[in-house]
Amino acid sequence: MDAHFADGLETVNAELVQMTRLVGSAMNRATQALLDADLTMAESVIAADARIDTLASDIEERCFDLIASDHPSTADLPFVIGALRIAASLERMGDLAEHVAKQSRLRYPRLSIPQELRGTFAEMGGLAEAIVSKTGAVIATQDVSLTADIARHDEEVDRLHRELFTIVLSPTWSHGVESAIDVTLLSRYYERYADHAVSVTRRVVTIVTGAPYVGVSLS
Amino acid sequence: MDAHFADGLETVNAELVQMTRLVGSAMNRATQALLDADLTMAESVIAADARIDTLASDIEERCFDLIASDHPSTADLPFVIGALRIAASLERMGDLAEHVAKQSRLRYPRLSIPQELRGTFAEMGGLAEAIVSKTGAVIATQDVSLTADIARHDEEVDRLHRELFTIVLSPTWSHGVESAIDVTLLSRYYERYADHAVSVTRRVVTIVTGAPYVGVSLS
Repeated sequence: MDAHFADGLETVNAELVQMTRLVGSAMNRATQALLDADLTMAESVIAADARIDTLASDIEERCFDLIASDHPSTADLPFVIGALRIAASLERMGDLAEHVAKQSRLRYPRLSIPQELRGTFAEMGGLAEAIVSKTGAVIATQDVSLTADIARHDEEVDRLHRELFTIVLSPTWSHGVESAIDVTLLSRYYERYADHAVSVTRRVVTIVTGAPYVGVSLS
Repeated sequence: MDAHFADGLETVNAELVQMTRLVGSAMNRATQALLDADLTMAESVIAADARIDTLASDIEERCFDLIASDHPSTADLPFVIGALRIAASLERMGDLAEHVAKQSRLRYPRLSIPQELRGTFAEMGGLAEAIVSKTGAVIATQDVSLTADIARHDEEVDRLHRELFTIVLSPTWSHGVESAIDVTLLSRYYERYADHAVSVTRRVVTIVTGAPYVGVSLS
């Protein structure tokens, strides 16, 4: 790997880590907005998404330049293509945080979720934060041993997602159809956010170990 | 553009068009499965998704090889990177068709949707088909004049999506919470399928005209 290419890749890597911080902060603040029906917080998340999108575009441009000017070898190319994919996933994680914030804004000044589910969403928010901060660490250090932790957190998010489904469908649900749909969509945003993080860490594993990428369904 | 690179790109293009056919057929059959509670049809859509995933991987590999062996110029690179992005979007459209099919399987032998909404979902299915077949034409011919049609169909899908929301939230909704959630999620799958198609055509426009890509939120 030549020095110019290695430098460029290092910059891209630092920007990807920066993206994990921004999308982590976005989901964290979106969760706060959700739990407290905090309109100002929700608006700040929505406004900040443009910065995430811009950073993703910058990374894309830099990767283009690296490929076009440095002609990376077959061995080095996966790093750049992987970075492009990772930036796209992180950008979508930012969009999902924005979706959570928009949902809070939509129902303001009411809470978007019934009081008794605040704990579950707080838990999902906490897991999302743990996942994204470990994802940042995996990108920064290429220490793939953290992926087991991330997978475990993701399973926990999936479990909470199923639990919420069961709750809104139970005969004792007393909050009506609109609230059931709000809870289902919100829960899905967290679940997909976690899935994207898992997909990012799998990409890093693929790049680091050269093992084939095993995708997760993200749609 | 050298001849080997141009040939490779032509193959990739043909494979992308083939993907639009597969994901079009998948959503078409998923819609039939949904409207008729047809388990065999649903299973066939679910089974066929692997072929779409494999084709997406093949395209990815071919693009890698093209970049690594042909060292495309800065001017040619966007074609390859664009193809990678388009393949990823089409793969997700296949996943969304599979989601619709899985929903039909989940409620079999019952219909997943109330009888009176069959017309609306048939309409969404028809629009999805129109959109994806025009998307295939845009990729095949690079005739970007079709994008206006696609955008109009997409707006129509968005309108039906909002209409379904209004219906399930109306006080006269008599099908309960589970059905309201089923309808909402199904409607969202169609809406996102259309959004991905729009994103694909925008990528093609970007490549053909050199104009900057204007993204759509896909999360």
